[in-house]
Amino acid sequence: MSIVNCVEYGEGKRIGDVQLTDVSAVLADDRQSRFVWIGLHEPTEELLRQAQEEFGLHDLAVEDAHRAHQRPKLEEYGDAIFVVLRTAQRGPDGAMAFGETHLFVGPGYVVSVRHGASVPYTDVRARCESTPHLLKRGPSFVLYALMDFVVDHYFPIVDELEGDLEKLEEDIFGGNYRRETTERIYDLKRDLLALKRAVSPLIDVCNRLTRFDSSVIDTETRPYFRDVYDHVIRINETVDNLRELLNGALEANLSLISVSQNEITKKLAGWAAILALPTMVFGIYGMNFDFMPELRWWPAYPLLMAFTATACGILHWRFKKTGWL
Amino acid sequence: MSIVNCVEYGEGKRIGDVQLTDVSAVLADDRQSRFVWIGLHEPTEELLRQAQEEFGLHDLAVEDAHRAHQRPKLEEYGDAIFVVLRTAQRGPDGAMAFGETHLFVGPGYVVSVRHGASVPYTDVRARCESTPHLLKRGPSFVLYALMDFVVDHYFPIVDELEGDLEKLEEDIFGGNYRRETTERIYDLKRDLLALKRAVSPLIDVCNRLTRFDSSVIDTETRPYFRDVYDHVIRINETVDNLRELLNGALEANLSLISVSQNEITKKLAGWAAILALPTMVFGIYGMNFDFMPELRWWPAYPLLMAFTATACGILHWRFKKTGWL
Amino acid sequence: MSIVNCVEYGEGKRIGDVQLTDVSAVLADDRQSRFVWIGLHEPTEELLRQAQEEFGLHDLAVEDAHRAHQRPKLEEYGDAIFVVLRTAQRGPDGAMAFGETHLFVGPGYVVSVRHGASVPYTDVRARCESTPHLLKRGPSFVLYALMDFVVDHYFPIVDELEGDLEKLEEDIFGGNYRRETTERIYDLKRDLLALKRAVSPLIDVCNRLTRFDSSVIDTETRPYFRDVYDHVIRINETVDNLRELLNGALEANLSLISVSQNEITKKLAGWAAILALPTMVFGIYGMNFDFMPELRWWPAYPLLMAFTATACGILHWRFKKTGWL
Amino acid sequence: MSIVNCVEYGEGKRIGDVQLTDVSAVLADDRQSRFVWIGLHEPTEELLRQAQEEFGLHDLAVEDAHRAHQRPKLEEYGDAIFVVLRTAQRGPDGAMAFGETHLFVGPGYVVSVRHGASVPYTDVRARCESTPHLLKRGPSFVLYALMDFVVDHYFPIVDELEGDLEKLEEDIFGGNYRRETTERIYDLKRDLLALKRAVSPLIDVCNRLTRFDSSVIDTETRPYFRDVYDHVIRINETVDNLRELLNGALEANLSLISVSQNEITKKLAGWAAILALPTMVFGIYGMNFDFMPELRWWPAYPLLMAFTATACGILHWRFKKTGWL
Amino acid sequence: MSIVNCVEYGEGKRIGDVQLTDVSAVLADDRQSRFVWIGLHEPTEELLRQAQEEFGLHDLAVEDAHRAHQRPKLEEYGDAIFVVLRTAQRGPDGAMAFGETHLFVGPGYVVSVRHGASVPYTDVRARCESTPHLLKRGPSFVLYALMDFVVDHYFPIVDELEGDLEKLEEDIFGGNYRRETTERIYDLKRDLLALKRAVSPLIDVCNRLTRFDSSVIDTETRPYFRDVYDHVIRINETVDNLRELLNGALEANLSLISVSQNEITKKLAGWAAILALPTMVFGIYGMNFDFMPELRWWPAYPLLMAFTATACGILHWRFKKTGWL
Repeated sequence: MSIVNCVEYGEGKRIGDVQLTDVSAVLADDRQSRFVWIGLHEPTEELLRQAQEEFGLHDLAVEDAHRAHQRPKLEEYGDAIFVVLRTAQRGPDGAMAFGETHLFVGPGYVVSVRHGASVPYTDVRARCESTPHLLKRGPSFVLYALMDFVVDHYFPIVDELEGDLEKLEEDIFGGNYRRETTERIYDLKRDLLALKRAVSPLIDVCNRLTRFDSSVIDTETRPYFRDVYDHVIRINETVDNLRELLNGALEANLSLISVSQNEITKKLAGWAAILALPTMVFGIYGMNFDFMPELRWWPAYPLLMAFTATACGILHWRFKKTGWL
Repeated sequence: MSIVNCVEYGEGKRIGDVQLTDVSAVLADDRQSRFVWIGLHEPTEELLRQAQEEFGLHDLAVEDAHRAHQRPKLEEYGDAIFVVLRTAQRGPDGAMAFGETHLFVGPGYVVSVRHGASVPYTDVRARCESTPHLLKRGPSFVLYALMDFVVDHYFPIVDELEGDLEKLEEDIFGGNYRRETTERIYDLKRDLLALKRAVSPLIDVCNRLTRFDSSVIDTETRPYFRDVYDHVIRINETVDNLRELLNGALEANLSLISVSQNEITKKLAGWAAILALPTMVFGIYGMNFDFMPELRWWPAYPLLMAFTATACGILHWRFKKTGWL
Repeated sequence: MSIVNCVEYGEGKRIGDVQLTDVSAVLADDRQSRFVWIGLHEPTEELLRQAQEEFGLHDLAVEDAHRAHQRPKLEEYGDAIFVVLRTAQRGPDGAMAFGETHLFVGPGYVVSVRHGASVPYTDVRARCESTPHLLKRGPSFVLYALMDFVVDHYFPIVDELEGDLEKLEEDIFGGNYRRETTERIYDLKRDLLALKRAVSPLIDVCNRLTRFDSSVIDTETRPYFRDVYDHVIRINETVDNLRELLNGALEANLSLISVSQNEITKKLAGWAAILALPTMVFGIYGMNFDFMPELRWWPAYPLLMAFTATACGILHWRFKKTGWL
Repeated sequence: MSIVNCVEYGEGKRIGDVQLTDVSAVLADDRQSRFVWIGLHEPTEELLRQAQEEFGLHDLAVEDAHRAHQRPKLEEYGDAIFVVLRTAQRGPDGAMAFGETHLFVGPGYVVSVRHGASVPYTDVRARCESTPHLLKRGPSFVLYALMDFVVDHYFPIVDELEGDLEKLEEDIFGGNYRRETTERIYDLKRDLLALKRAVSPLIDVCNRLTRFDSSVIDTETRPYFRDVYDHVIRINETVDNLRELLNGALEANLSLISVSQNEITKKLAGWAAILALPTMVFGIYGMNFDFMPELRWWPAYPLLMAFTATACGILHWRFKKTGWL
Repeated sequence: MSIVNCVEYGEGKRIGDVQLTDVSAVLADDRQSRFVWIGLHEPTEELLRQAQEEFGLHDLAVEDAHRAHQRPKLEEYGDAIFVVLRTAQRGPDGAMAFGETHLFVGPGYVVSVRHGASVPYTDVRARCESTPHLLKRGPSFVLYALMDFVVDHYFPIVDELEGDLEKLEEDIFGGNYRRETTERIYDLKRDLLALKRAVSPLIDVCNRLTRFDSSVIDTETRPYFRDVYDHVIRINETVDNLRELLNGALEANLSLISVSQNEITKKLAGWAAILALPTMVFGIYGMNFDFMPELRWWPAYPLLMAFTATACGILHWRFKKTGWL
């Protein structure tokens, strides 16, 4: 079922469940101290149309809430506001999944519509009902509570991404190159970009909510939106930080791999050069000239062997000293 | 023929075709509830001049519409506005082609001029005629419908470019290097830059349309322009995202290729070093010294062969262990 | 001679040449419908002082016009404005040369001062005289005509630079590396930076001219300055585009060169490794041991040759298959 | 104990210690010339609640001060302001540790809360008490003194980081590559990013304090906040500078290492090529053809040796000249 | 001595030297047409305090002027302004040295304080005294003259840095790599950053001076500050340009070096491969098999030599053709 909840609140307390079709009747007399909070999960188009008629929601907002492929934003339609949030979840395999939450907030109502990856807002409802002195402020406090909930769920994800980067750093500076390191860096970059795209538009959304002159947003709740704003800024900064560190890690990775590869090639070339010397010398006495007096002199062979061994030793020592080996 | 259509609308309904020369007469009495929408396709200069006289279009705007080599923009001339849009199409071979659409919108008229790669606006006309309650809002709704149509046509192109990037990523991380990968990355970069250039000026155009104080733009259509604005922002963000990922892919590609090439060179150098050892040893016993007692000792030959084989085996094992091979 | 022209205009028509010293007398009675346009080319200091006295030009502006080493700018001195433009030319060898044009525009006069690389403004004068209905608007139209002329002369240069980049791309992706490619990329970068420096300050200059509240700038000419502004923006965007593509080309160039060099080194190392094998084997039978029964067995030699040939063949085939060759 | 100090000040002089519970009584009659400064260090939640009741601090601010994981910021709650600062310390091993200081400033009180790495504010208190003519300005001067103290403690850290970079530069240009250099560059980058994150939000905080229209901030103290602002800007600029130089150092490091490695590989390849020549020549006369007249000619051997030596000498000289060696 | 000059000016003319202690008496009656210009060079604290008392300078400004480690800035204290400038000098060895100049400008006085590397302001004084019609405008003209002098001294430095870059370019594209090139590029980058840091804050300082509403800044001098502003912008642009070109040069340098190194390694590997062929062939006939009929055939030796020579020739020709050599 796509209706999750449809509850009436008054004076900061839960009054009880209502039918969607009774809402106008319920609110008819008092939209100041009472409001209805409707929670929908991937609603059918018909259901959305019903809510639209009930609260006079704007065509375009309803269309957005149905198609659910929006970027986070805040729209004003008359005295109602429409907020789009992106929710994020990270599977056990590290894959990021994004969902969307659409909020319609107007005098006397809040409609929250969940799509895709997200957790139910039961906890938010419980938290609101446990602080009647804040819930009294009406729909704008519910809006705050929902935004705070969504934004707070980004923190563990950001922490996990930080952990991923740390593991990458260990691999990189631990010195063992694996082909997958480059791919993991690329995947992390992709995740950070996706997260950034979900979070950064919220800066503007929160900022506007803290200075809104609208009857829907209680001025007393402004400091609360400023609090969400601070959280969003912090997540955003951490993501930027991670991206910059990731770029540094990528460069360090590349540099260390190529340096260590070249180091080995250099050493192999050094050993080849050392071996090339005796090979050449032995070639001399492999020649078949008739007149090679050394060949007849009996200590020539041991002397030559000693000489080449010494020469190789000296070469080895010099190569070591100048870093050629 | 360069006249595509010249239709009169009144009270949200199609009244009928009119002649371009009769337009002033038709509109003379009522420019509030009636308007004419003229659709031109690569018009002759003469035809444009005729429209100019009919509606009093500004010299510079007409010149722009004729030369058709403009960047997207919005100009106000008195109570009329002039909008330039870029249309994009992608051929089956992936080549991007751009066209231009110039829109003159004033009290009682919309003139749309198509140039280059673009699809006819018959669908837009049909959509407008099917929503009389919106068409009633006059020329500004037609402007919205045309902009929405043009912008919505960017989405499939962006999706294709995303698909191209994904194919590239598969090639890169799949490990098989092809010379063409670098060229394809470069071509994709070029396409993204061209798309960016077509889309990003629209941000400003839409933004201005949502806050316009002009008799031409019905205030009721503002939310619609905000909707186009959101789409433009989303396309723009996706393009930026793609560009950043493309840069990452380019770096990963380079890194993986050069690492794998160096890996092979390193291994070849390792094998060469292993072979250089027995070559040197065999050189010793190829020498023709008279006094080389080993040569006369019968087990020397098999022992030497066994010894060099073992030495090579040890070298091979150590090289494998330290990653030199 | 450094005076090029000194002509009086009235009611949009050319009245006739005047002497610089007679100007005040000529303008004394009517600065509304009449004005004088003086064109100077690298004037002497004395001549500039004379013009200064005639029109009350500001000390600093005259100094600038004489020293001619300014960046494009727009200055207001009382009811007069002073505009500095950079003109660009490209020699047949591709070398860029820059000149400067200084414009003093006030009630009843335009003084244009050309320095360095530039074409005479005879064409501008002819164009102005051929459109009396625009020339009627006075000095501000002349200012527009001059700016339009200067800006339009950037287009062919930008086109040539685009052509240069295309030739570079062909060279890069055509696969033949030349040392000069890097130098040409660097030179192109230098030219683009120089062009950018000449054009980008014009954005601000044009922008200010389109919103100027000054008696000198006729409000009717504002759309014309907006037109120049559009051209400047377009040139600027193209230059930015070219710079970004150039950076991509540089990277692709580097990548392709180093990949192809490493490819060859890899192949050479592969061939060396293949040749090292038989060399080692032949070394075995070059040894002079008394007890080497194979040496006495007659089919040993052809068998060995066949064996090594087969071994090399197998190596070659495997190297080809794994991409080592 | 988490209460460090709770002192009453009046007319710029220290009056004496008070109990936290007596504060309201003490301030009841005069909040203009008197104020209380309470210094807390990692306070319990209970203690914070007590202070909250005493001064009417905002819920969200108290929560922030207790959880202590904020970015530097300035919040206004009614006539009180809440400032978050980050304090930084650097251990003897170069590891950076960050702490937080939360300041509540309102009419008649300053509450400073220290968390994590930081030095006690005893020195600030002493400095304030030694300048009664400034302390007279009330809580805003204490706020300045604390901010100045925190910001001034960044300078030695920035100096140390500059010293680290200089040591890195010496290592890089001194030519001896160590694997750790890359890791140190990365760590320095990480530290600079962390420092930047602590300092850059202060620019906005100080900027707002210099233009604040609030009864808490004495207008006379504005120049003092401007002074802090200048210091923050300077630290920020230095950090940016260091980051840019660090990037340059990283590039130079990579370039120099890879160049020097390639240089060695090149030289080794050169030596191998020189040795390959005589090896080949000696191979000729190691062949066992019956008909090789040179073998019978007695000066052939010394002549050949002289010839190959000369050939190697010439090769060596040419390689040296063309930079191949 | 740290007092350089203390001179009274009136109506644009030099009146004569005064004692610092007499200044108040001298100015008592007329601060409109008269003013005193005091030039100090690294003054003692006592002297600064004396000037502070005489003119009522702000504590913080005096402290800044004494400690002298500020970034360029402009501060207002009541009706007086305080300007900090950085002066730059370049030693014969190319080392940059920076100094500071602090200017206190108020009604009736200018105090200029020089620190570190700078030239005395005798020339500025002479220039001011030679233009009485400008000096009449009072302290603000002196401020302009000093700023103009400081800024104009940046031009030769920028020109020298441009010269350094050109020499670097010649070295880079001239093709001879030296280890020092990388170090020089890094040093140049460091100098450019330092220069940028000295110049870029002046943009804001000059900008504010051109729109200042203060009794100290004569509105007639505004165009003069705009002139300084233009110079500062030009220096700033040139520095940015140089930095971008320097980055390009660094990349080109790296690319060309690594390409040329790889080129040599490639060629050496090619030669080694060519030599490896005959070495292998000669190895065949060095074998001691009893049954090798070729050894007994007299033309075998010359034929083999001819054959291998031809084979090497063909290899060489093919390697040359395919660019392997």
